Amino acid sequence: MPNDSNAAANGHSAEDIRWMTKAIELASQGRGKVEPNPPVGCVLVRDSICIGKGYHQRFGGPHAEVEALSDCDDASGATAYVSLEPCCHHGKTPPCADALIRANVARVVISVVDPFDQVDGGGIERLRSAGIEVITGVAKEEGEELLAAYLKRVLTGMPWVIAKWAMSLDGRIATKTGESKWITGPSARSAVHELRASVDAIAVGMGTVLADNPLLTVRLPKPTKIATAAETDAKTANNSGPLVRLVYSRSRVPDLQSQLVQTASQTPTWLVAGPEIATADLARLADHDVETWQCETIDPVEMVRQSLLWLGSNDNPRGLAMTHLMVEGGSQLLGSFAAAGQIDEVHAFIAGKCIGGHSAPGPVGDPGIKTLADATSLRMSRMDSFDNDVRLIYRRQIAATETT
Amino acid sequence: MPNDSNAAANGHSAEDIRWMTKAIELASQGRGKVEPNPPVGCVLVRDSICIGKGYHQRFGGPHAEVEALSDCDDASGATAYVSLEPCCHHGKTPPCADALIRANVARVVISVVDPFDQVDGGGIERLRSAGIEVITGVAKEEGEELLAAYLKRVLTGMPWVIAKWAMSLDGRIATKTGESKWITGPSARSAVHELRASVDAIAVGMGTVLADNPLLTVRLPKPTKIATAAETDAKTANNSGPLVRLVYSRSRVPDLQSQLVQTASQTPTWLVAGPEIATADLARLADHDVETWQCETIDPVEMVRQSLLWLGSNDNPRGLAMTHLMVEGGSQLLGSFAAAGQIDEVHAFIAGKCIGGHSAPGPVGDPGIKTLADATSLRMSRMDSFDNDVRLIYRRQIAATETT
Repeated sequence: MPNDSNAAANGHSAEDIRWMTKAIELASQGRGKVEPNPPVGCVLVRDSICIGKGYHQRFGGPHAEVEALSDCDDASGATAYVSLEPCCHHGKTPPCADALIRANVARVVISVVDPFDQVDGGGIERLRSAGIEVITGVAKEEGEELLAAYLKRVLTGMPWVIAKWAMSLDGRIATKTGESKWITGPSARSAVHELRASVDAIAVGMGTVLADNPLLTVRLPKPTKIATAAETDAKTANNSGPLVRLVYSRSRVPDLQSQLVQTASQTPTWLVAGPEIATADLARLADHDVETWQCETIDPVEMVRQSLLWLGSNDNPRGLAMTHLMVEGGSQLLGSFAAAGQIDEVHAFIAGKCIGGHSAPGPVGDPGIKTLADATSLRMSRMDSFDNDVRLIYRRQIAATETT
Repeated sequence: MPNDSNAAANGHSAEDIRWMTKAIELASQGRGKVEPNPPVGCVLVRDSICIGKGYHQRFGGPHAEVEALSDCDDASGATAYVSLEPCCHHGKTPPCADALIRANVARVVISVVDPFDQVDGGGIERLRSAGIEVITGVAKEEGEELLAAYLKRVLTGMPWVIAKWAMSLDGRIATKTGESKWITGPSARSAVHELRASVDAIAVGMGTVLADNPLLTVRLPKPTKIATAAETDAKTANNSGPLVRLVYSRSRVPDLQSQLVQTASQTPTWLVAGPEIATADLARLADHDVETWQCETIDPVEMVRQSLLWLGSNDNPRGLAMTHLMVEGGSQLLGSFAAAGQIDEVHAFIAGKCIGGHSAPGPVGDPGIKTLADATSLRMSRMDSFDNDVRLIYRRQIAATETT
C-alpha cells in the first residue's frame, strides 16, 4: 500500500465528502449479493452535477466503475468517486482503472485503498501514471464500515463472524431448567431469519444440535414453513451459493435421524469435526450428504481459527471463499469464538423479562475473560426494536491500513 | 371507584386527547418533586383555546387545578383537563373538586381515576352533583404510565422499585474473577447518578457493601467528588427529604469503618436487618447514626415485601411514605426482589464488550424462574445511548383499575 499523503490530510472538501457518501450508499445496495467481492459504488461528477452512477450489483457482474461509465455518454474531465480503490487486475472483468483512464476522467476520489494483494495501491499507481489526480481516504470511516467483512477476509483470510443471541433483560438465554422457547417474540425471530438469508453460513455447536434438533433454514415469510433447497437457492440466487449449515463438534457427530442430517441432501450441511471423531462416523455422515472437515486440533480456540481459514478460502466444499458467518450458539461455541477473538459483530436481541438464577446460562460460555481490559471492544452500530424486544448491533472496527 | 361508562367508551374526541396529552406533559414536570403526592397537570380550555394551565410543582404546594385556575381570569364555562381525578378531601390544601365547582367550569375531563382511599371516585361524584359534565379515561394509558409509581403505592402500600444494572453485551456484571469496574463508560455512570438524584432511596445488599465498600451518594456534576449532606439536601430540596441509603442484610452488619457507616451522620443510612442479627450489633450501628429496622422473617422474598411496606408507609424513619426505591444490586438482592415480583422498572445499561465464562455473574441471582411463563413481563419504555453504551428502560404496566 502506498504511503499516501492525501489520506493523512486533515480535511477533505465538503463536496468530495458528499459525493463519496452517495457512492457508499450506492455500494451498500450490493451487500449480500456480490460476495466474496466487495460491495462498491461509483458516482461520476462534472461541474458539481452527477452525470453517472452505478454499483457492483452481483457476483460476476460489472464493477461499479463500469456501471457508472455506462450510465453516462461522456465522462471526460469528470471526477469519479469510488468507495474502494479501482482494481488493476483481470479477474472476472477487466481492470476498472483502465476503464477510467480510457474514459478520460480527470480525477479519481477513493474512500478505501484496497488491501487485496492484486490491487493494494496498484490501481492508484496506474491512474496516476496516466496523469489522473487521485485522492484517497475520503469518508474513510464510512467506507471501511461498509467494507468491514471484505477487509477482514482480505487481511486475515477469515470470514466476518456475526454472533447472534436472544436473551432476557438480565442476560439469560434460558431458565435454570433450560427452557429457552421463546425468549423473544415473533417479530424478532423473523429478523433472525432475515439475517440468516444474508450470510454464507450459520454455525451451531453440537450441544445445540442435541438440545434443540434445529433445522437452521431460512423461513420467510411464514415462520412455520420448512424452506426447500430450491427456495433457499432462490433467496440467494444473486449470491455465491445457498446458505450452508455448519455444525462444530469436538467429539460427537449428529444423529443420523436429526433434522440437519435428514435434510442435508436438500440444504448444504457441513461438519467441522474434532480429531478424535472416528473416520467411520464421518463416512456415515458423508453417505447422508453431510460434508465433513476434520481439524487437527482438539483446542477449541485453535479449531475456530482453522475452520475460519478453511471457510474463508476457496478450498471449502463450496469452492468459493465465505465472507459472512453467523454463529447462533450455543454458549460453548460462542465462548470459543470469543476466546479466539473472532466475534466481529453481535446481534443481541433483548426481551423485556427477567429470568434470574445463577445457573441460568448466558449467551457466551467458557473460558471468558479474566480482566475487563481483555475484552474486545465493539462499537455500537445500530439499535432498533421489534414489538417489545430490542436488537443491539455492535461491530468491531476494521481499518484497511491497520494490519498491512 | 364508580362504574364509569365513559371510561368504557370506544373512543374519545381528538381534541380531548390532544388537551389531555398537554395536561400529562405538564404533570410530568412535577415528577421527582411532589412525591409522595402524584404528579398532576391541568389545562383549562374554552372555544378550543387554552386559557390557563398549571401543574403540581412541589410537595405541599398548590395542586394542578388551583395553579391552572390562578393562571386565568375567568374559567366559567371552560373545560378542565386534569390528568388525575380532582381530590375531594382536605389534605395539605383544600379539595380541588370544590375549586373547579366555584370557578364554574362546565366540563371536567379526567385521564386516571384516583384509587386513593380518600378520593376513589369521590371527586367525580362531587363534580357531577354540582351539574358538571365529567369524562374519564382520556389518554388513560399515558396517564397511568406517568402515575405508575403513585398508583403502585396507593394500591399496594409499597414504593415503585427501579432495578438498575450495568452489564456487558452478553449479560455479565463482572468477569469470572469478579472485576466489574467499569463495565460502562463515564456518561452512562453519570446517568446513574441522575437517576439516584430522582429517587427516595437506593438499596444494596450486604454482599455489595463487603465487595465494593460503596458510598452511594449522588455525585454530580463532578463524578469524583463526594457529595455532602448539604448538597444532597439541595438536590432534593423540593422533594420530601434527602436521599436515603438502604442496606439489606440477613446475617451480618456493615463494618463500622465502611464508607456507608462513616458517613451516616451526613447522609441518611438505614439497615434492613434479618431476625438473627444481634441487638448489640444494631445498637452499635445506631450509635453511628444508622437507622436499623429488623425483619421478623429470614425468608428473603418475605423480607423484601415487609421492607417495601415499611418504606411505603409513614412509619419509616423519614416519617413520610417513599414512592421510588432504586435497587443497585448485587445479584442476590435483585434475585430476591425479582422472586418477590417487586421489580417494577429496569434500567439496564449495556456495554459493547463480551465477557463470557459460565461463572461470570449476571445481574439477577437466585432463585430465578423455572419456566418462561413465570417471568414478569415488562414493557419497553425507552432506549437511548451514552457514548458506546446503551440504556434500556423497561417498566411494568400498572392499571389504576386493576386491583380495586
